[in-house]
Amino acid sequence: MLESDFHSFRQRMEIRIGLISISDRASSGVYEDKGIPALKTWLDNALATRWTGISRLIPDERDLIERTLVELIDIQGCALVLTTGGTGPAPRDVTPDATLAVADRVLDGFGEQMRQISLKYVPTAILSRQVGVIRKNALILNLPGQPKAIKETLDGIFPAIPYCIDLIGGPYIETKLEAISAFRPKK
Amino acid sequence: MLESDFHSFRQRMEIRIGLISISDRASSGVYEDKGIPALKTWLDNALATRWTGISRLIPDERDLIERTLVELIDIQGCALVLTTGGTGPAPRDVTPDATLAVADRVLDGFGEQMRQISLKYVPTAILSRQVGVIRKNALILNLPGQPKAIKETLDGIFPAIPYCIDLIGGPYIETKLEAISAFRPKK
Amino acid sequence: MLESDFHSFRQRMEIRIGLISISDRASSGVYEDKGIPALKTWLDNALATRWTGISRLIPDERDLIERTLVELIDIQGCALVLTTGGTGPAPRDVTPDATLAVADRVLDGFGEQMRQISLKYVPTAILSRQVGVIRKNALILNLPGQPKAIKETLDGIFPAIPYCIDLIGGPYIETKLEAISAFRPKK
Repeated sequence: MLESDFHSFRQRMEIRIGLISISDRASSGVYEDKGIPALKTWLDNALATRWTGISRLIPDERDLIERTLVELIDIQGCALVLTTGGTGPAPRDVTPDATLAVADRVLDGFGEQMRQISLKYVPTAILSRQVGVIRKNALILNLPGQPKAIKETLDGIFPAIPYCIDLIGGPYIETKLEAISAFRPKK
Repeated sequence: MLESDFHSFRQRMEIRIGLISISDRASSGVYEDKGIPALKTWLDNALATRWTGISRLIPDERDLIERTLVELIDIQGCALVLTTGGTGPAPRDVTPDATLAVADRVLDGFGEQMRQISLKYVPTAILSRQVGVIRKNALILNLPGQPKAIKETLDGIFPAIPYCIDLIGGPYIETKLEAISAFRPKK
Repeated sequence: MLESDFHSFRQRMEIRIGLISISDRASSGVYEDKGIPALKTWLDNALATRWTGISRLIPDERDLIERTLVELIDIQGCALVLTTGGTGPAPRDVTPDATLAVADRVLDGFGEQMRQISLKYVPTAILSRQVGVIRKNALILNLPGQPKAIKETLDGIFPAIPYCIDLIGGPYIETKLEAISAFRPKK
């Protein structure tokens, strides 16, 4: 296959994105989950590439979070997995621990920068243990639980995500320029 | 116990705060310790909740720092332990190593943000290895050694500390609003 | 030896600085290495102390990077080793992994601050896994691959480096004041 054919093949591919909302109360029906809808709305607004969301609403159980991350990447073929919830210091908050347990590599810049972004809005952003990691050819990011904070975080970090997924061998993702400007260095 | 009773019970409780000054020279009497007085002055000025300080002045010995942290939390019941000194790159600086050794969880945001705060004043703040960690129901924070830097750091990060201690099951801490504004998200 | 004699002895010493460019393509001759020349130009412009560069141009092989770091510090006696290249998320990028493998201690502030500096220029700086570590009496820093980014990073962090090397028992480094102002706290 010529390189130009391969490029257009990658562009035609549909990408799969895992959306995991992690909350004891939302998963047991105590209240309605607002995490997955917030993720879907943001991605619909931002992505030019066709995408399919694969959603899971689960409690704050470390083993289950790990198994869900592995399933979405290794079996469902997601190139990107976004989690929401469970990143704080409370004993039931175990999302970062589960994420690190299935990671091949940690990208410290994501955790640092996501906290910096949220610190503009609330001083307790310092308490978040959220991480960004690579597993195989996929990127996993731990986002905050609140819809407003999800949007603030994705607005701030998404410009770097398509190039990251290029570098780890994932599909080519294009954004709607009016919503978010993906940055790729010139060769 | 009703929730409102429990709330006022927590507010009536006296909180215990560990203050550890770590310095070979101050602990051997070569010069006077200025760390513990600086911590006490800051806390007296900032806390509305009644508090008792439990102070230790010790040399830069990793085993002794670890044992002191464990004693202040596990035996003395401190909800917060503030250390001062020993966070740099010199071979005798071992405070962060001792702190990590007794930690159940690391809150990376504290190390990052404490360095960011000090970087506004001195470029060598980049060299600090200071960390914030959870042990059981207590928060441990490594502060700088200089009284001026102690104040700058606590002014910057303390708004997030009462809520952190809420989340890990510690006592309810109230601040004097004119000194420091503790932030707790609305439910 | 009197302290003043020791001080002037340290100042007369020539310092040795390791310069490692890590790139499959530059090391195999596909293109010309621009990393080592950029490091040399920057150091010639910034250092008042006499210095000797010990350069290595090697591929992105983790074992070889580790052995090169060890050789430059343990055998060649470098007080500072600057690497360029290989810090991203791509599978062949292994410079930080090799650096951490030979480290005695990690100085998290360097990774954080180097990313913060580069984030002013490109959003994909968040993807860099670059670290700063201590091995024995030497400091190792992972710099970006591009000459422009090398200069931006060194301009930002070098003020803290001479004092860091003082603290870990290395030679006394002086900078040209018009180029870079090394910061050392007053005693």
